[in-house]
Amino acid sequence: MNYKNFPMVPRVIFGRGSFNQLEELLAPNRLNRNAPFIFLVDDVFKTDGALTSRIPKSYDDKLIFVSAEEEPKTSQVDALVEEIILTSKESPSGIIGIGGGSVLDLAKAVAIMLNNEGSAENYQGWDLVKNKAVYHVGIPTISGTGAEVSRTTVLTGPKRKLGINSDFTPFDQVVLDPELVNGVPKQQWFYTGMDCFIHSVESLNGTFLNAFSESYGEMAYGICKEIYLEGKLSKKDAQDKLMMASWHGGMSIAYSQVGVAHALSYGLSYLLGTKHGIGNCIVFNHLEEFYPKDVALFKKMVIEHNIELPKGVCADLSDEDFDIMIGIALGLEPLWENAIGSNWKKTITPKKLRELYLKM
Amino acid sequence: MNYKNFPMVPRVIFGRGSFNQLEELLAPNRLNRNAPFIFLVDDVFKTDGALTSRIPKSYDDKLIFVSAEEEPKTSQVDALVEEIILTSKESPSGIIGIGGGSVLDLAKAVAIMLNNEGSAENYQGWDLVKNKAVYHVGIPTISGTGAEVSRTTVLTGPKRKLGINSDFTPFDQVVLDPELVNGVPKQQWFYTGMDCFIHSVESLNGTFLNAFSESYGEMAYGICKEIYLEGKLSKKDAQDKLMMASWHGGMSIAYSQVGVAHALSYGLSYLLGTKHGIGNCIVFNHLEEFYPKDVALFKKMVIEHNIELPKGVCADLSDEDFDIMIGIALGLEPLWENAIGSNWKKTITPKKLRELYLKM
Repeated sequence: MNYKNFPMVPRVIFGRGSFNQLEELLAPNRLNRNAPFIFLVDDVFKTDGALTSRIPKSYDDKLIFVSAEEEPKTSQVDALVEEIILTSKESPSGIIGIGGGSVLDLAKAVAIMLNNEGSAENYQGWDLVKNKAVYHVGIPTISGTGAEVSRTTVLTGPKRKLGINSDFTPFDQVVLDPELVNGVPKQQWFYTGMDCFIHSVESLNGTFLNAFSESYGEMAYGICKEIYLEGKLSKKDAQDKLMMASWHGGMSIAYSQVGVAHALSYGLSYLLGTKHGIGNCIVFNHLEEFYPKDVALFKKMVIEHNIELPKGVCADLSDEDFDIMIGIALGLEPLWENAIGSNWKKTITPKKLRELYLKM
Repeated sequence: MNYKNFPMVPRVIFGRGSFNQLEELLAPNRLNRNAPFIFLVDDVFKTDGALTSRIPKSYDDKLIFVSAEEEPKTSQVDALVEEIILTSKESPSGIIGIGGGSVLDLAKAVAIMLNNEGSAENYQGWDLVKNKAVYHVGIPTISGTGAEVSRTTVLTGPKRKLGINSDFTPFDQVVLDPELVNGVPKQQWFYTGMDCFIHSVESLNGTFLNAFSESYGEMAYGICKEIYLEGKLSKKDAQDKLMMASWHGGMSIAYSQVGVAHALSYGLSYLLGTKHGIGNCIVFNHLEEFYPKDVALFKKMVIEHNIELPKGVCADLSDEDFDIMIGIALGLEPLWENAIGSNWKKTITPKKLRELYLKM
């Protein structure tokens, strides 16, 4: 047996208003005046002076708004890297991602690709990155994805939807400021929070589970139930706790893996561009067979929060479309092995997946 | 409000048998052949070939057995540093602590003092360390202290019992191998596990609590109850989980603090040399006034596991002795502020503490 030596985020600051300490966190990491900090910021904040005015830019630092409308793409990473190289006097002092999972993943990928040759698509997989990334900081503005703590950065490339999984991927610094989630719309709050719930369910019910992942998974699972089912917390407490649940849900996957929902959701997302959070929800709603107790809980949460899940998303797809989705999903072998066990290929067939997709 | 930017252990490996991967973990950190790895090992393992034969020594690497009979002292740190400097051709590549909280704390302190001038006693306090420590690795062989994850190294000096709290204190690498706790005697398993339980109680009931510390604290608290009260786990599962509880209990204090039990226990330990785990238990047993629900739970655990707590430990002390203990305890201001609030001096008087000590 060989165990993973898990890289953890080496610095974390937690607290309401901790975003205001960003300047003091960055200062010791500035290489020189010509080496800028690049702030990649979700473009929903374009008109939000309350956030952008507090971004501590100086010298040649740049603020680049990025769209999180679509799932992050390898081509988007390559374009950002090119833009940064062309417009900076020297290689950046650091990349700071401020946004949801998509922006955090872009920030991680850009930091890696600034120090590694070629296109991001060449690094989709496990441990393909050769050089240390540029110093990078993650500041989530919505809770649930676990991108702030994970050793992957999920990207859609020309050939696949797959993460850049590496020891160089995790952030060097994370700022957890629950005040930043204030403006999140309710639907998105639900879908992204469910990403965390589903992480914990898939980790806790997986064959890879150990005591490390279990303790983190249970913590995330418990908090999600407290927030989305019991509903007794104040708004502030719920924001604070969900930010921690997202963190713990991400930590839970360190020694474990996600499972059926993520595998199928990656297929949807690759073919249809479905965003990760909502994609997971569309899929998870039909997984009673795999996670009976937790799908029942999920359905209660959907009702409790008046969420209308999209229906019939696969109704008009061609055979070719199905083959593409199914190919993407079946390619994620570690996810199936975690969810079903080493003999997963006996039950998880293209026919089976097509039946599942047809329900959605 | 200014929040701490908490330094986390950047690398952790968890799993039964993961100790066998120590060689591959250390190899990339060897500076050169003349810069040895120094293994500080609890001397209970002196006759345990099963452990010592697996310590991957090469070149000039040294194994030094250290006694954990007494709480670690600043003089002990200074002596170890001198021994290492005198017997090594070059400054060490790394310090590897293998043992309980005392040995882990010694390893952290030695790694710091190899790169900082003067005596360890000069660094007891908060953020007094100037230079980065030598690379250091922590491998707990008993669970509960949280020393594997904390940013302190508690030492008894000529003037005080106080930690070297600094951003350079945490280990660079931790190996969590629950197989290593196999030989722990029952009494020690109880006392050290209760250190974790008391960490979580003091953190969860403190005024410094936030959602970060709360989520970790609840996880540690829940696991301790599961192990010490419910008793339904297999031996292996209990070992695995207690190792995680210790970790989470330590993380919980990151943004919080310990409280009344630790303050009083430090006094006992300074004067009488009482070991930390048992000292905490002796004290906690009489803290109904501060932690009523949890002291009741603790008393149940004591009965459940047939533990005979020492009694009358303060019976023969002189007034001068009491003054010393009380001075040490009252000097730990952040602990009292966490436990009672900013106006703690109104109720926590020398007279009050003497009454408490007299019960023990």
